Amino acid sequence: MSSNQADKLKISEGSVFLYGDDAPYSNNEFITRLKKISESNEIANDSYSIGGEVGKLESAMAKRLGKEASVFFPTGTLANHVAIRQLCLPQKRAIVPEQSHIYQDSGDSVQQLSGVNLVPLGSTNPYFSLDELKESLNASISGRVVNPVGVVVIESPVRRCYGRLMPYEDMKAITGYCRELGIPTHLDGARLFIASSITQVPLQKYSHLFDTVYISMWKYFRAPYGAILAGSKEFCENLFHIRRMFGGSLPSASISASLALDGLELFESNVKMEVDKSNAFLDALNKLPHLEVSRYPDGSNIVPVKFSSTVDLQKLEDSLRAEEVFINTKTSTNNTIHLTINLTILRKSNDELLKIFSNAIKVSAEN
Amino acid sequence: MSSNQADKLKISEGSVFLYGDDAPYSNNEFITRLKKISESNEIANDSYSIGGEVGKLESAMAKRLGKEASVFFPTGTLANHVAIRQLCLPQKRAIVPEQSHIYQDSGDSVQQLSGVNLVPLGSTNPYFSLDELKESLNASISGRVVNPVGVVVIESPVRRCYGRLMPYEDMKAITGYCRELGIPTHLDGARLFIASSITQVPLQKYSHLFDTVYISMWKYFRAPYGAILAGSKEFCENLFHIRRMFGGSLPSASISASLALDGLELFESNVKMEVDKSNAFLDALNKLPHLEVSRYPDGSNIVPVKFSSTVDLQKLEDSLRAEEVFINTKTSTNNTIHLTINLTILRKSNDELLKIFSNAIKVSAEN
Repeated sequence: MSSNQADKLKISEGSVFLYGDDAPYSNNEFITRLKKISESNEIANDSYSIGGEVGKLESAMAKRLGKEASVFFPTGTLANHVAIRQLCLPQKRAIVPEQSHIYQDSGDSVQQLSGVNLVPLGSTNPYFSLDELKESLNASISGRVVNPVGVVVIESPVRRCYGRLMPYEDMKAITGYCRELGIPTHLDGARLFIASSITQVPLQKYSHLFDTVYISMWKYFRAPYGAILAGSKEFCENLFHIRRMFGGSLPSASISASLALDGLELFESNVKMEVDKSNAFLDALNKLPHLEVSRYPDGSNIVPVKFSSTVDLQKLEDSLRAEEVFINTKTSTNNTIHLTINLTILRKSNDELLKIFSNAIKVSAEN
Repeated sequence: MSSNQADKLKISEGSVFLYGDDAPYSNNEFITRLKKISESNEIANDSYSIGGEVGKLESAMAKRLGKEASVFFPTGTLANHVAIRQLCLPQKRAIVPEQSHIYQDSGDSVQQLSGVNLVPLGSTNPYFSLDELKESLNASISGRVVNPVGVVVIESPVRRCYGRLMPYEDMKAITGYCRELGIPTHLDGARLFIASSITQVPLQKYSHLFDTVYISMWKYFRAPYGAILAGSKEFCENLFHIRRMFGGSLPSASISASLALDGLELFESNVKMEVDKSNAFLDALNKLPHLEVSRYPDGSNIVPVKFSSTVDLQKLEDSLRAEEVFINTKTSTNNTIHLTINLTILRKSNDELLKIFSNAIKVSAEN
């Protein structure tokens, strides 16, 4: 969720956001938390994003992911780019999901800046199949000019596909096949922490399949920016030179790293509660009239809710908003909206939330 | 100065740093200032480094530089890169000073990522001459393959050459010649604010010569990171797409922008005092025995001081350090050190500083 909205919305500490990865961030919240953190811990200085609090975050994240090391990047766009670039070279072709962030939302950065051709697979689906992969790998070495694939990328969960996940068994089959062929693999796991808490597949079990994994520091961990790219010690060593070449070695990044570490702790100690509570909430919500809650079989924390045609979604949104419950109806089709579950669901009791929804449905449904 | 040093040095608010652009930054100082700023001003949220406090900083800096607009970048490395890339294209050759940051310290980023060939001029000098430029421009269009120059870059002051500056008249001649030929120009003016206060050539008079100018936000303005790239409205419009492609659009950058705005004000209200005071200090220092203060004719705030061979520089450094005055003897040659003047010189009176130096010379000079 963009922070501009934080300025526009009249939000309070009781606001529940049923869209976006978390509450809209606000500078005041960052400052309040920083002050609190600095009162109990020394926030150690980094130097050009090396050491200090940044180093602590890198160690903590490597440990969580069961990787030997990790490197801090200012953005996920850059973390993904550098992972693909470094794993791929000297080859110049990479396979990516067509609906991935790196293919759709990064301005063709890997192609433009690193000259690596991204071959998209999976069409409008959240992920491609092993058969599609085999076909593409075969095509890359059977044409008039042989151009082997240097890296295979998976994104999971997929933001553009309502947080749907490549099932673990598919991931295992695909990465296993790549390993047999000696082709390295990268996971864009920006939102992997929430996904793992829902699928109950441990983080390390996911990340173990891949050579490198990227995790976002600002979606769930409440940092203003930042990304972690984890991999082998050999891969991560000296990677700061590449980061610097891209203009990604901030002179001082400790503040964001410190907020990420704090947010990581907050997330971990609350995520089970969030998932349990939201499951109960969604089950109860489904019993209200005029709506049907469904689940994607391969979904994570984004849930489609179809309202009957008599419900005016704009009225529904306004009524919920008056009670500080925020939904997003802008992308609705067929009177279906998507509810995204995040930590803010803990800010109101399920009883309270259900009462608010019940009332909002009443005032927005035609009789 | 790297922040690691801030952890190692026992520094106080009275510490004077006669090297580096400012006191070593510390997270605690950032947090204290942020809290103070947020008490009197609302720190408006940006969204992916657009608007909010970032927008305010962009407007303030464009105004100071007399440019129509400016764009925030996380680092100077990226600001320089994007300036060269955008001004140069579709040409693929740029002229840069051989001693410049973009040529020496950026991992060949422009060459590697944007495919632009940087032709270095000026050898070990801080700047190249108009004649050298003419020769190089001529060579670029008289070879077997014509490859015209797309942009000419000047850095001033030059960090690698003790802050020496290309004299204004030379700058005017060179940029004027480029303009005649229709070749755009970019100024790496990371440290232009301090330079202008010393040469007394107004900022706008410098920046008026160039199509684009980059200024660092963390060297003098006490932000943890950040750079401003100023230019025409047309140049800056939509530049955020390129910034994002490079992974340089931080989700939230208001905190750094806010610190930069605060630091800009602090710098501007103190720089005259700093320059006057340091001139008086250096004149008085020159009267002490066993040393000679000289000035580069084209210098800025970095001043060579040659000590007689009887002075043990390590003893000198230790003695000064005991009184919280810090110098850097690591790069000394011929018993000459360089003193860099920055705002921390205001933390002790000249009398006090001279007494400390006088004593340090006594204890470090053999009799």
